[in-house]
This record gives sequence, C-alpha cells and structure tokens, in this order.
Amino acid sequence: MTRPVILTGDRTTGPLHIGHFAGSLRNRLRFQESHEQFLLLADTQALTDNAHDPGKVRRNVTEVALDYLATGIDPEKTTICLQSGLPALAELSMLYLNFVTVSRLERNPTIKDEIRARGFGRDIPAGFLCYPAAQAADITAFKATVVPVGEDQAPLIEQTNEIVRRINATAGKTILLEAQAIIPKTGRLPGIDGKAKMSKSAGNAISLSAPPEVISTAVRAMFTDPNHLRIEDPGQVEGNVVFAFLDAFDEDLITLEELKAQYRQGGLGDGKIKRRLDEILQALIGPIRTHREELAKDLPYVLDVIRSGTERARSRTETTKREVVEGLGLFVL
Amino acid sequence: MTRPVILTGDRTTGPLHIGHFAGSLRNRLRFQESHEQFLLLADTQALTDNAHDPGKVRRNVTEVALDYLATGIDPEKTTICLQSGLPALAELSMLYLNFVTVSRLERNPTIKDEIRARGFGRDIPAGFLCYPAAQAADITAFKATVVPVGEDQAPLIEQTNEIVRRINATAGKTILLEAQAIIPKTGRLPGIDGKAKMSKSAGNAISLSAPPEVISTAVRAMFTDPNHLRIEDPGQVEGNVVFAFLDAFDEDLITLEELKAQYRQGGLGDGKIKRRLDEILQALIGPIRTHREELAKDLPYVLDVIRSGTERARSRTETTKREVVEGLGLFVL
Repeated sequence: MTRPVILTGDRTTGPLHIGHFAGSLRNRLRFQESHEQFLLLADTQALTDNAHDPGKVRRNVTEVALDYLATGIDPEKTTICLQSGLPALAELSMLYLNFVTVSRLERNPTIKDEIRARGFGRDIPAGFLCYPAAQAADITAFKATVVPVGEDQAPLIEQTNEIVRRINATAGKTILLEAQAIIPKTGRLPGIDGKAKMSKSAGNAISLSAPPEVISTAVRAMFTDPNHLRIEDPGQVEGNVVFAFLDAFDEDLITLEELKAQYRQGGLGDGKIKRRLDEILQALIGPIRTHREELAKDLPYVLDVIRSGTERARSRTETTKREVVEGLGLFVL
Repeated sequence: MTRPVILTGDRTTGPLHIGHFAGSLRNRLRFQESHEQFLLLADTQALTDNAHDPGKVRRNVTEVALDYLATGIDPEKTTICLQSGLPALAELSMLYLNFVTVSRLERNPTIKDEIRARGFGRDIPAGFLCYPAAQAADITAFKATVVPVGEDQAPLIEQTNEIVRRINATAGKTILLEAQAIIPKTGRLPGIDGKAKMSKSAGNAISLSAPPEVISTAVRAMFTDPNHLRIEDPGQVEGNVVFAFLDAFDEDLITLEELKAQYRQGGLGDGKIKRRLDEILQALIGPIRTHREELAKDLPYVLDVIRSGTERARSRTETTKREVVEGLGLFVL
C-alpha cells in the first residue's frame, strides 16, 4: 500500500527554534515513519515579504536544512527539497492565479491577518497577496493530501481545495487531489517572555543550537505568575510559560499533574519547576546541538542532501505539471 | 556587432487577421533583418482571461504559428517560441511579483482599461492583474531592449522598467536591461464596419486565410461615408474605412493622395475605391493564403519550428534567470 503524501516545510528566514520543534519538527519525525514526507525549504515563499533582503533568504536555506537533519529528519525517509529549485511550482502557481480572483485572495483571513501583522497597508507586494495560489501549487504538485498547518493557516488549505475543484471542473476529470489540514494538538509555544509568539527577532526564543548556559539563562528569565511572590503563595499554571513548556516537553505526565496541583495550592517555588524544565531542555537540545555542530562541519553533505532531495522532488512535481497541462488540454511541446 | 534584441508576440486566442498584419506582422518582416527577433506564442498570457477555455488557447498555438510562417517570418532569422515551454518565464514572474505592489498593478492604465473592457468588475482573475509582471519577465528574460507595442500598452513597458530598476537596485548592479517601447507609425486598422477595433469575435475582421470571394464581400461591405450618396457628392476621407485600408496597404502614395482629393471634392464613387482596395488586398492576402494552406499540410514541420525555437529560447531565458538568481544572491543549487 502506498503511504499518504504529506507536505510541510519552513520559510528560510532564520534558523528554527524550540517553538518549531514543539509545533512541527517532532511531528515530522513520526510522519517520516508513516507517510511519504516532503519537506520544503520555502525560499521562494520567503521572498514574498523579504524581497529587500535576498541574502537572508539564501543563508537560511542551509540553516534550516541543518535544523532538519540535526533533529533527526532522515533524508532516506523524508525528501528535503528547495522550493526555488522546482520550476514546476512557479509554472503551476502562474496557472492557478488564473483560477482565483483578486477579491477571493483579499478575503482570505490568513492573508488579511498577515497583511495587518506586517504593516503592509496598501503596499502589499503582489507576490504576498498571491502566495495562497503558490501554496496551492506546492501542495498539489506533490499530490499531498495531508498538510500540517497552524490553526491560523487552515483557510489556506480551503483556498487550495477551491483551486483544485476549479481545475478538475475545467478539465472535466480528477487531476488534482484535495488536501486535508492537520492542526497539531500542541498549541503554539509562547515566547519566554509570555508573548503569544516565539520568534528570533522578538528575542524571546530558544534556538535549537543554544549552548547550555543560554538555555539556563532563558529558563531563569521565563515569565511565570507575577503574583506568585513567595513559595507558599498559590500560583497560576495558565499563562505560566514554565508550565507551557513543561506541557510541551515533560514526558512524565503524572508528576507534571502533581506539580501543577502543588503550584496552584501553594508551596512550590518557581526555582524548582525551572530547574526541572532546565534539565528537560538540556536533555532535549543537547544532542540536537551536538549533531548540528557536526553536520555544520560537513556542508557538502548538507548540500548533497538538498540537491538529491530536490532532484527527487523535481521528478514528482514535473509529472504533476504535465498531468495538469495535458488534463486541461493545453499545448504540449 | 550584436544586433539589438526585439521581443514581440501574440496571445494564442485566434488566428491573426489583416489588422495584425498592418500593425505588427509586416514590421516583424523588417525587424528580422535588422534585429535579433523573438516571437512569443503567448499561450500562458492568453490563459489570464481564457482559463475557462484552455482548448481554444491550445488550438491557436499552431494557428498563430502558421500565420507567422505564412507571412514570411523566417525561423532561421526569427526565433518562434512557446511561452508555456519556458519555465524561466514563470519563475521570473513569481520573483518579480515580490518587487511590485498590488496597488501599483491596480493603477496601471492598461490593466484598468482592459479590466473595464472585459467586464471583470471585482472578479478579476489574479493572473490577469499580475500579467504586467509576467510581461516584465518575458521582456527581461530575452534581454529585449526593443518592444513594439500598441499605444495603449506603453504603460506596460514603463512597469517593466520599474521592476528592472528595482531588481538592479536590490542586486546593487545592472543585471537586467531597461526596454524601449516602439509604437508603430501605422495606427490601428479599424474593423470593416468602422469600429475602432478589428476582431474575429466582432465579425468585422478579414482573416489572413480569407478566400478571394470573402475578401471581396468584406470590401463591398466596408463602411465609407454615409453622406456620400451620389458619385458627385463630396465625401469624407477621415473615418472612411476604405481609405484607412488604402492608407495602410496602398503603396502608390501619389495616386492615393489624388484619389483622396477627388473623393473630398466629389466625383469619385465608393465602387471605384473599393475595387482598388479589393485588388490590393487580393494581391496581399493571396500569396499568404496559399503559403498558409501548404504549411497547414505539413504540421510536423510547424511543430518542429516551434520546438526548436522554444529550445533556443529556453537556453536564453534560463541564462537570464540564473543571472538574476545569482545577482540577487539567492540560493543556487
């Protein structure tokens, strides 16, 4: 039986952090056992709001690939590929743009939110407005039926499926497959300062290559319950970053529940839960960091992984493009 | 000395007519002697407003190629190539979309007019709004510096040059060349009914494969001066389709001026000028029609012209794409 195809990836705008690990990277380690997994180094998409700094987008291609390999992505099981190395994605994007209206793109809630968040105002780069069509090209080109996304990105999959239905209707037969969004159970990991979003630029992230003392400093600085002043005070678990992290990474769920109860009741100091989290994070990040350092010494190997993955992906995406072109009855040279 | 590069072409939405001959085809016969000329069978662009009918776009690829060859385009001198066969054009289009804002595209006068003319309203296909970026990709990918356009399309070249300047500024060096619009001296040939635009769908065109009797019927039906009822009446030359055609095709300019004077003064019947035009059009279209019929019997040859032209164009456009990618400092696999 063929395994279901899953497509996921990251914009190459910076190395990944422990928020990515909790939200996506570790799921991918499981998916590579059960699914045919493609991991897209999304440099083309990264340019839709980083056209002024192409160098950043380039440099982070290898950084993100290093993160993938360091966390245990196995290039024999997962195809790691470079978006800009797959011309069929651009060709399908341009084609799909004819099957979606400008007003439909403008109504996309994800795009609306992101335009607001980036402060584009009226000066949205056209590529940014159009990226849902590009994402539809990515998903369909790989024939992916499973796409893990953040909750805020589910409308993008709906947009993809609209395009799929329109292409199939025009062709009069099923060429492309609809995809299903998978929203991971673990919600988004907050920043160490308690802000909803962890990001390198906000300075509230713990990177996957953080040295031991940086991890410890970050844990010590973590936002807890500002009203939990003395050990004996009752404390809040909700909105407490240390517990959010323990929820994400502590595998001893029974002890964790006991700690939460004790914290709520009073009698458990921040120092103790922070030491526990520090140990867990050191044990988690330590091997990733070491592995990443080793891999970083062998960049030709990393490039080779990207190159051979991209070649494999090229064959897949070119096949789909040909099927779409033929299915729609366009000119085939 | 290398010859300047000229890019021109046609959307593959229908066979070409005598209006195309007057406005562009015959200029291309001269340009192929003096310029390095690329002729684009613009099937990708045709889809921006014909996505519902891809079959029409496919069928007319060979029709337009036949028109080119029949009018004397020499595939040894001019590269005839298929837009959809050149992935670099889609890749550059997607890249350029990041260097232009949505509001800039919406302000483009050509796009505004065409949106109105096509009655798109709010339901503009995104591909249609974005086509100026795609056209910038076409022009720059061939390194064309000369682009013949209708008067109404000059803003598209300005848009292209804006993108060129932005790419060069981001790269910090000149990768792409600005292009110059050439607006042909002969204005647009009116339809035989006197409407400003000749088009197959309006039923007011004379096709390049029109049989003799169809040409004669069209000439007889031509709009002249509705107030020129009797031969001795003074007649209007302006707005008179027969004279517009004579202006475009009559090579005996001295006689033509005499006829105009006589017509204005009175004493020259419509029948006489129509007979003159009929002769001229028969002499013009006859050989094109015959040549086209012969070529249509040898479609493998036509396909071979398109195929080898597209291969030549591919090498050129891939080179440019690589230069842009490297120039911007993007990741090169």
